[in-house]
Amino acid sequence: MAHGGGADVMACKQEEEEVENKAAWLLGIKTLKIQPYHLPPLGSLDVKVRIKALGICGSDVHHFKTMRCASFVVKKPMVIGHECAGIIEEVGSEVKSLAVGDRVALEPGISCRRCNLCKEGRYNLCPEMKFFGSPPTNGSLANKVVHPANLCFKLPDNVSLEEGAMCEPLSVGVHACRRAQIGPETNVLIMGAGPIGLITLLVSRAFGAPRVVIVDVDDRRLSIAKNLGADEIIHVSTNIQDVDEEVIKIQDAMGSGIDVSFDCVGYNKTMTTALNATQSGGKVCLIGLALTEMTVPLTPSAAREVDVIGIFRYRNTWPLCIKFLKSGKIDVKPLITHRFRFSQEEVEQAFETSAGGGNAIKVMFNL
Amino acid sequence: MAHGGGADVMACKQEEEEVENKAAWLLGIKTLKIQPYHLPPLGSLDVKVRIKALGICGSDVHHFKTMRCASFVVKKPMVIGHECAGIIEEVGSEVKSLAVGDRVALEPGISCRRCNLCKEGRYNLCPEMKFFGSPPTNGSLANKVVHPANLCFKLPDNVSLEEGAMCEPLSVGVHACRRAQIGPETNVLIMGAGPIGLITLLVSRAFGAPRVVIVDVDDRRLSIAKNLGADEIIHVSTNIQDVDEEVIKIQDAMGSGIDVSFDCVGYNKTMTTALNATQSGGKVCLIGLALTEMTVPLTPSAAREVDVIGIFRYRNTWPLCIKFLKSGKIDVKPLITHRFRFSQEEVEQAFETSAGGGNAIKVMFNL
Amino acid sequence: MAHGGGADVMACKQEEEEVENKAAWLLGIKTLKIQPYHLPPLGSLDVKVRIKALGICGSDVHHFKTMRCASFVVKKPMVIGHECAGIIEEVGSEVKSLAVGDRVALEPGISCRRCNLCKEGRYNLCPEMKFFGSPPTNGSLANKVVHPANLCFKLPDNVSLEEGAMCEPLSVGVHACRRAQIGPETNVLIMGAGPIGLITLLVSRAFGAPRVVIVDVDDRRLSIAKNLGADEIIHVSTNIQDVDEEVIKIQDAMGSGIDVSFDCVGYNKTMTTALNATQSGGKVCLIGLALTEMTVPLTPSAAREVDVIGIFRYRNTWPLCIKFLKSGKIDVKPLITHRFRFSQEEVEQAFETSAGGGNAIKVMFNL
Amino acid sequence: MAHGGGADVMACKQEEEEVENKAAWLLGIKTLKIQPYHLPPLGSLDVKVRIKALGICGSDVHHFKTMRCASFVVKKPMVIGHECAGIIEEVGSEVKSLAVGDRVALEPGISCRRCNLCKEGRYNLCPEMKFFGSPPTNGSLANKVVHPANLCFKLPDNVSLEEGAMCEPLSVGVHACRRAQIGPETNVLIMGAGPIGLITLLVSRAFGAPRVVIVDVDDRRLSIAKNLGADEIIHVSTNIQDVDEEVIKIQDAMGSGIDVSFDCVGYNKTMTTALNATQSGGKVCLIGLALTEMTVPLTPSAAREVDVIGIFRYRNTWPLCIKFLKSGKIDVKPLITHRFRFSQEEVEQAFETSAGGGNAIKVMFNL
Repeated sequence: MAHGGGADVMACKQEEEEVENKAAWLLGIKTLKIQPYHLPPLGSLDVKVRIKALGICGSDVHHFKTMRCASFVVKKPMVIGHECAGIIEEVGSEVKSLAVGDRVALEPGISCRRCNLCKEGRYNLCPEMKFFGSPPTNGSLANKVVHPANLCFKLPDNVSLEEGAMCEPLSVGVHACRRAQIGPETNVLIMGAGPIGLITLLVSRAFGAPRVVIVDVDDRRLSIAKNLGADEIIHVSTNIQDVDEEVIKIQDAMGSGIDVSFDCVGYNKTMTTALNATQSGGKVCLIGLALTEMTVPLTPSAAREVDVIGIFRYRNTWPLCIKFLKSGKIDVKPLITHRFRFSQEEVEQAFETSAGGGNAIKVMFNL
Repeated sequence: MAHGGGADVMACKQEEEEVENKAAWLLGIKTLKIQPYHLPPLGSLDVKVRIKALGICGSDVHHFKTMRCASFVVKKPMVIGHECAGIIEEVGSEVKSLAVGDRVALEPGISCRRCNLCKEGRYNLCPEMKFFGSPPTNGSLANKVVHPANLCFKLPDNVSLEEGAMCEPLSVGVHACRRAQIGPETNVLIMGAGPIGLITLLVSRAFGAPRVVIVDVDDRRLSIAKNLGADEIIHVSTNIQDVDEEVIKIQDAMGSGIDVSFDCVGYNKTMTTALNATQSGGKVCLIGLALTEMTVPLTPSAAREVDVIGIFRYRNTWPLCIKFLKSGKIDVKPLITHRFRFSQEEVEQAFETSAGGGNAIKVMFNL
Repeated sequence: MAHGGGADVMACKQEEEEVENKAAWLLGIKTLKIQPYHLPPLGSLDVKVRIKALGICGSDVHHFKTMRCASFVVKKPMVIGHECAGIIEEVGSEVKSLAVGDRVALEPGISCRRCNLCKEGRYNLCPEMKFFGSPPTNGSLANKVVHPANLCFKLPDNVSLEEGAMCEPLSVGVHACRRAQIGPETNVLIMGAGPIGLITLLVSRAFGAPRVVIVDVDDRRLSIAKNLGADEIIHVSTNIQDVDEEVIKIQDAMGSGIDVSFDCVGYNKTMTTALNATQSGGKVCLIGLALTEMTVPLTPSAAREVDVIGIFRYRNTWPLCIKFLKSGKIDVKPLITHRFRFSQEEVEQAFETSAGGGNAIKVMFNL
Repeated sequence: MAHGGGADVMACKQEEEEVENKAAWLLGIKTLKIQPYHLPPLGSLDVKVRIKALGICGSDVHHFKTMRCASFVVKKPMVIGHECAGIIEEVGSEVKSLAVGDRVALEPGISCRRCNLCKEGRYNLCPEMKFFGSPPTNGSLANKVVHPANLCFKLPDNVSLEEGAMCEPLSVGVHACRRAQIGPETNVLIMGAGPIGLITLLVSRAFGAPRVVIVDVDDRRLSIAKNLGADEIIHVSTNIQDVDEEVIKIQDAMGSGIDVSFDCVGYNKTMTTALNATQSGGKVCLIGLALTEMTVPLTPSAAREVDVIGIFRYRNTWPLCIKFLKSGKIDVKPLITHRFRFSQEEVEQAFETSAGGGNAIKVMFNL
């Protein structure tokens, strides 16, 4: 560097990047603005990823509509989004497993790796977790993000970037099926045929569940579930007084005992149905988050040793999700119902579409 | 049998027995009569036991006071009682492990041994279970009962018959501690210092729990818990609005995270406290049966992967209980607070005493 | 029974039966005679089954060739055989789940149902086990047998009696896959492409194993394995000095870490290969019984926490096997390579064929 | 610091430190020199610890005597030692949990925290592990070391620094007892009353093992075992032909079935004894490393479903060890038989003492 310039060139490059990288910032209720996003420096074990596909999750919609989700509150502008995949653009000095140009799916949560829960392998419960788009951590609906290399998973040639982004919701299903120990002997009931219910259906199948019955109030969603491989679909009411009758209907449809029920909704009625329908010694896995407090027949089900299993996100799930996608054991493409561009014109529209429910299952950005 | 005699002698013996064997029959609400009890024939794998000690359980009290317990209803006169020990009086032709004169504790439930749950070792959930004093099966508050030899467990010399009868309530604690995987790393919270709470305290200790905090509304019971070895006792109110404050108090008393909570009561407040107090990744074990339907913050605890574990009776617990009693790891004698004779005068009084709570923990018959 | 006749008819019927029911008695080394077989009386919970299909197992061949198998010695004439299915001909007075005419597969071992191991659900280890064709218990290569109803499993219409008989060897694979916890994340290595190796391949697949590599010295067997769905087949030598080189070849063929290895042979070389090839934290499941004493690198594999899992027969496996056959998840028909009639002419020939190995996988009697 | 000098002072301090910090370098077989040890810079999450107590482990002795241990080879001068405790002298900028002056025990292995095994909580198997005194990583027999704060565990007031150093060998016992699932129902056999055998005895007790039988060839060690609480001690020969007879003696001494055996030696005879003595469905946990290749009756034990469980170091064990020491559930002081100063005069002598076996159990440096 005899003749100066080096620093200028770098400053210039740096500036270019700041100009170039933009993200969708959540500024207030239903207010998203695409604005510049200055990335943190690339650590030696990090990679810079050019995001190419990002799906909208229910929790993103909560943030969009209410500036909060469960106990998380958005207190200052935050980049939204976390279900994503992209292309490696730069790798840190010590990164060996990835190279520029690799197509990767991103696991969005960075745990501390040092607390007891991390050491025990339950890092999803790490109290220091920094998770894309979960306040106060910025998300990944951006042109580029910096992320630890060990949380970026290379996609095989036959798995698209959109499918890569679907690893995130798939992971919820995988974690639930692992915790509930789904296998070739487990008859599965799924309460709710929304995105998580449908994904749980696909993953239960991939874990070998011989029989899956799925329940919803919406015939359109049920028919999607049927197309995705549910053995039986059952239309139910929203009236809690129908539970006993519906439990009988569900048990008849299963034909033999229900071993595991997934409540992918989280209402008093769905949970009551799940608890009552599951056979003695079975499990109810609570994934849906509709209600905070529930009124449910907990004692009778406990007295039949029907355990309630909780689910929080996932851990170590990307490799398996990619394996499922690569082998074709799971096909997530039918779940992607809507696509939007990453532009000021379309960004809020995409979130409104996802929030609208109806025939929208997974809404995807192509960046 | 050419020259009479033999048959007459047998007929006579048989008659003597019918005259001699009496039991406490539950005839109606709070109505117990000591009346003759004709035993079934002794099968080749059965033994006849002279009952010497029998404790009164909360479920017996329910039957006594209401002619029902949970979904079980007493529809015709039934011998009451099931926590018992006695002396072998006769053994079936194929019984090898026991001999006349052996002192034994009796496991009260006879499973079918042939259904899937029995084959899998979860025989406590057997749908064909015949359980002493659980309608319509007669109980064991009787001079004698006939029972399968494999459910009668020989007591060592240093374990009394009263202690033998205590194997039954101990078994509930053992099954709960096994299902909750209590060990030397498990900090334990116990909601309720009634008989089951106190027993769970003793068994948690025997399983190695390094720290046990116990909570109740009654100072007298708490002070018993303290004497039995609780590290900390916490007096709480019955007001649900105190939960948050009390959770902080409980967590402070524990000093580090609560791994397993046992709700030995089963009210909205006790379960809410347990769910909120238990740390992420922990378990709440629901043993108490006060309420059928509960209103509890199930979703937030599930989202911290705090699982709810159900308990129904026990399985394979007598050998371990006897081991605990023999080695002195558990001393149940302080729990036996009242003793009654097996007579028409005292039988209802004993049940009233047990029903009265107060300073009565375990009420025992000496037969 | 005023006018005689009844008893005569019964005596006559009884006699007819004794004449009619014949079985293959093992009288000495390689000596089988089809001779009358007088059945025990039908208990209230038993059924009488007309055997229609019976497969020959490696242990039967051992008995045939040497009058012993492992620690079991044939000391007096014994009916041989245990992999069987048939049609219910008579049911005991308390049997409710089965009816005359039902087509059933028979689980061959009767445990005591009363010892600790039975109570804990590990009934395959019951010391009192009475097992078809395992001395001194008579087997089931007979026209008829009496068996407990709860060990006879009804076959669906689309599962043949021959397939029903295959539930027995399938059960070995199911028990091994359960104990080794095979699932959609488990890369599987199988040492040996004999009958048990091939069945383990089929069952591993049904449990979701994403990748199965199978190893043998015989190309013909390897090509069968390939046709049955092995991802890779590897031809190896019998020379122990080739282990290191072959391990590399096997690991390369797997492509990623080997989680579970099944040694379906049981030689020093197969076990050494399995122990060395399996990745840290994995399992080696020893099924093959070739050697009693083995010389293997146990310490280095233990120091990588590669556990050795033992297998003895099976428990609670028939329902799952039938589910697999019914759904088509497993097709056992290609394994049945030879068929014989139940006649004095063919019975020894069938055992010789099975003993000969070669292209014989499963040799089946049609009765 | 009115008049400059700050940088000089720092440079001076830095130099002082280089002069001051010394370590025991392994230069060749049985050649240890105390020489300066220049520490790496203190990272933001690191602490600098003044080592005060360090115990000698069998693996250190292997390195000392042969410049290797298992597959690890010392190729260049290396600081030896890894069982240690000390006092925090400096904390990194982001360390919150520890402060200067804290007394801490050090977990010696630094895993990568990013590979699959680390993420799954099996970080002891991490292929990138950097472990004190395991080549090529320097050890901790030094005045000071730099170590990650999350691997330094604060000692309570009633636990000495020597006891803190004992957390390392205790951890091996804890990891073994966890993997073997020792609890109040587990009868334990221990092969070998050397340091690891004795520690396994103490830890088995702390996990609640009701009965522990320990076996050795050396009466002096057996009598120590007896004093430390073994229920029975059994003197055996080194002759493999005595196995059958000794197994009977051992089983008689236990009185009931042996559930778990720990082989803390690793010879053909010890492992054969363990495999044969353990009851059906039990476990043999292989900790001792004497032989690489073993000749053992693996098939018969596997056919009784006696699993072989491997052990490699430990994970997440320090908190539990400290809990045991604090509560007095385990007293390690009787194991510390010899003490040496950290000086050129004594360092090789200490290792020779440890290597000599005999009445030396744990040899400790006081620095």
